[in-house]
Amino acid sequence: MPDLIQRKRDGGTHSPAELDALIQGYTRGEVPDYQVAAWLMAVYFRGLTPQETGDLTLSMARSGDLLDLSSLTHTVDKHSTGGVGDKTSLVLTPMLAALGLTVAKMSGRGLAHTGGTIDKLESIPGWNPELSDDAFLKQAREVGLALVGQSKNLAPADGLLYALRDVTATVDCLPLIASSIMSKKIASGAQAIVLDVKVGAGAFMKTVADGEALARAMVDIGQHAGRGVRAVLTDMDAPLGHMAGNSLEVQEALETLHGRGPDDLKELCIALAVEALSAAGQPHDAEARARATLQDGSALGKFRAFVAAQGGDPQYVDSPERLDVAPDRAEVTAPRAGFLNSLDALGVGRAVLVLGGGRERKGERIDHGVGVELLVKPGEAVQVGQPLLRVYHRAGRGLTRALELLQAGVDISDSAPQVPPLILGRVG
Amino acid sequence: MPDLIQRKRDGGTHSPAELDALIQGYTRGEVPDYQVAAWLMAVYFRGLTPQETGDLTLSMARSGDLLDLSSLTHTVDKHSTGGVGDKTSLVLTPMLAALGLTVAKMSGRGLAHTGGTIDKLESIPGWNPELSDDAFLKQAREVGLALVGQSKNLAPADGLLYALRDVTATVDCLPLIASSIMSKKIASGAQAIVLDVKVGAGAFMKTVADGEALARAMVDIGQHAGRGVRAVLTDMDAPLGHMAGNSLEVQEALETLHGRGPDDLKELCIALAVEALSAAGQPHDAEARARATLQDGSALGKFRAFVAAQGGDPQYVDSPERLDVAPDRAEVTAPRAGFLNSLDALGVGRAVLVLGGGRERKGERIDHGVGVELLVKPGEAVQVGQPLLRVYHRAGRGLTRALELLQAGVDISDSAPQVPPLILGRVG
Repeated sequence: MPDLIQRKRDGGTHSPAELDALIQGYTRGEVPDYQVAAWLMAVYFRGLTPQETGDLTLSMARSGDLLDLSSLTHTVDKHSTGGVGDKTSLVLTPMLAALGLTVAKMSGRGLAHTGGTIDKLESIPGWNPELSDDAFLKQAREVGLALVGQSKNLAPADGLLYALRDVTATVDCLPLIASSIMSKKIASGAQAIVLDVKVGAGAFMKTVADGEALARAMVDIGQHAGRGVRAVLTDMDAPLGHMAGNSLEVQEALETLHGRGPDDLKELCIALAVEALSAAGQPHDAEARARATLQDGSALGKFRAFVAAQGGDPQYVDSPERLDVAPDRAEVTAPRAGFLNSLDALGVGRAVLVLGGGRERKGERIDHGVGVELLVKPGEAVQVGQPLLRVYHRAGRGLTRALELLQAGVDISDSAPQVPPLILGRVG
Repeated sequence: MPDLIQRKRDGGTHSPAELDALIQGYTRGEVPDYQVAAWLMAVYFRGLTPQETGDLTLSMARSGDLLDLSSLTHTVDKHSTGGVGDKTSLVLTPMLAALGLTVAKMSGRGLAHTGGTIDKLESIPGWNPELSDDAFLKQAREVGLALVGQSKNLAPADGLLYALRDVTATVDCLPLIASSIMSKKIASGAQAIVLDVKVGAGAFMKTVADGEALARAMVDIGQHAGRGVRAVLTDMDAPLGHMAGNSLEVQEALETLHGRGPDDLKELCIALAVEALSAAGQPHDAEARARATLQDGSALGKFRAFVAAQGGDPQYVDSPERLDVAPDRAEVTAPRAGFLNSLDALGVGRAVLVLGGGRERKGERIDHGVGVELLVKPGEAVQVGQPLLRVYHRAGRGLTRALELLQAGVDISDSAPQVPPLILGRVG
């Protein structure tokens, strides 16, 4: 190990065998934390070549269980680098199923200010995130869509490395970020992977250049691993759509599957579906086909079948207004006239958290009904006193702090601001 | 800690309080290895300012016991960065005592290919490296010279940091090397410190420029700590003097104290004594005064009194030939005629080790009588078959390997080589 650390320290490159010895040794507890920490800091300064990043990622993917989807055809997976109010998976995955692709996907729960797809789906009474391996594959084959919680030990090296990076100031390192994301995606087994790389104030990547570099690194890793990977760079200054909070986001996703729903969410899902079709080798007429799944009811039909197959009550799919939403309301109003210049997505995410809709620590129960609705989106003109945000709370729990967070995130300007486009670029 | 690591990672500087929190926290086991390892690698890339290096060293010095020499006057300490056949301390310390300075010093034992002053002195029957605190100070006050083993817990942070650096490829870092050496010297309490910085194939610092940079960093730390520090840069391509091995080196040191002995050893001791006098604020006529101590018997007298005070038999001081030397002999001869171009000091050190004169692990017993004698020094002309090295062994133990090591280190050239001067520079 000291020789390996020294090689990276001095600007050298590692062989696949060296990286595998490091990763498997660390996962088994044979290579100590302190040597990996020194190596991570050397990587921070010296970087990794695309070849090294690919080899590292494959070693991390092989450090635990590998999901075997080889009995399925046209498998596709999706990953978002994390946003607020991001219910994209709820709309996109049934669209992909309706397009003939197969989504057999593990999803996570929310932590801190970011939500999780499993939490959102649990807003639907009866829906169950646990399936046996056989039932998971059978449902994916028959419905085209199965979503379960993280029951497998996928890429445990990633969890260990991330925890170490978090306490050694080595998180902000592009090849390590890219390998962290892609190791789990590769272990998850899909042949095609579409990535939603968020850019902006509410995202980890603050600039388009940084987002493009991350996307490029992940696409390169996919190529190294023999997977089709494409990425869309999307704006995450303000929350996506109008809703943040579990039931509220499911309602908005269902509205979109019903052919209604906000434009930004719809266009993002179409853009991601187009890239997914490309990644799966089916680029022909992709945009029109993707758009049609939202208009002809085919994506909605897939979602209904998916919910029913996992024990959920399909009446909520057809009547989303019946989902439980917290009964109490409060509003944040415009302190003066002008234009809504920006709305801090992180502040909205934290407001949902303090209302009880998210968790500080793993395992905490959450209130699916609370959340925040954006009544105005950035760029729109507002009058003094006009309601900007509606808070859905339960008997005032967390309300004071939530209102503070939301008010602090509102920025009103005198002139109409330049609102960035939703789709900032494509890589792949 | 992550913020502190990040500050150094990003090229920032640490306050004294931050460095103290790091060092004391690590020494108490509150800051984990992996965070210190990441910080060390960040320091490797970003460096430390002289101010930071000084503050770090003071924190390390304060991490354990501090030797209180305040009841003594004109205290002086000496440190060598490590050489082969380096019996300088045995000659220099009685010279300093004879010059009116006070040497109250802790010395180490040998490990691997480097010897230790305590091991060498134990070649003298009866000599005891253990003194009570009171006896140590009393002897220093009365004789001017007391040398004991490392009984105190001096700068434990240094031992911890060094062990971590050794396994995380962060040894080769100038401010960390300088602070490691100086933390123990500062904790050892002397007001003046003279440093022998070895440069060359047999030393840690391979070039004069590297040696000067290390010397400068250590002198700066001394100034920061309010101590007088001066350094001499000396050549360590070949061993110093003619002898390597414990009894053999004591014999050679005693020859030098008797006014005989090899020129290189004598000149080095005089140069170090001159710097020690300067560091102690007594530069007047220093060289003549230092030289006189070897001619008028005053240094020898101090050494005799010192040996006797610590239980040693002074008859060996007057008749060094009576010291136990291994009875068996072997020689390495010149493979061809020419000039002795170089002689690998490290190879000589390793030969002494395999003969039984050194230890691989702490606590191992050693054979004081074995060793190697240089019959020819680099630069001299040699005939084919001429004896170059004499091995003193005990019944052939380790002899085959020792001869291999020595033969491999002999380099004969056709033309007379440029032999570097012994004294390469001075800093302070």
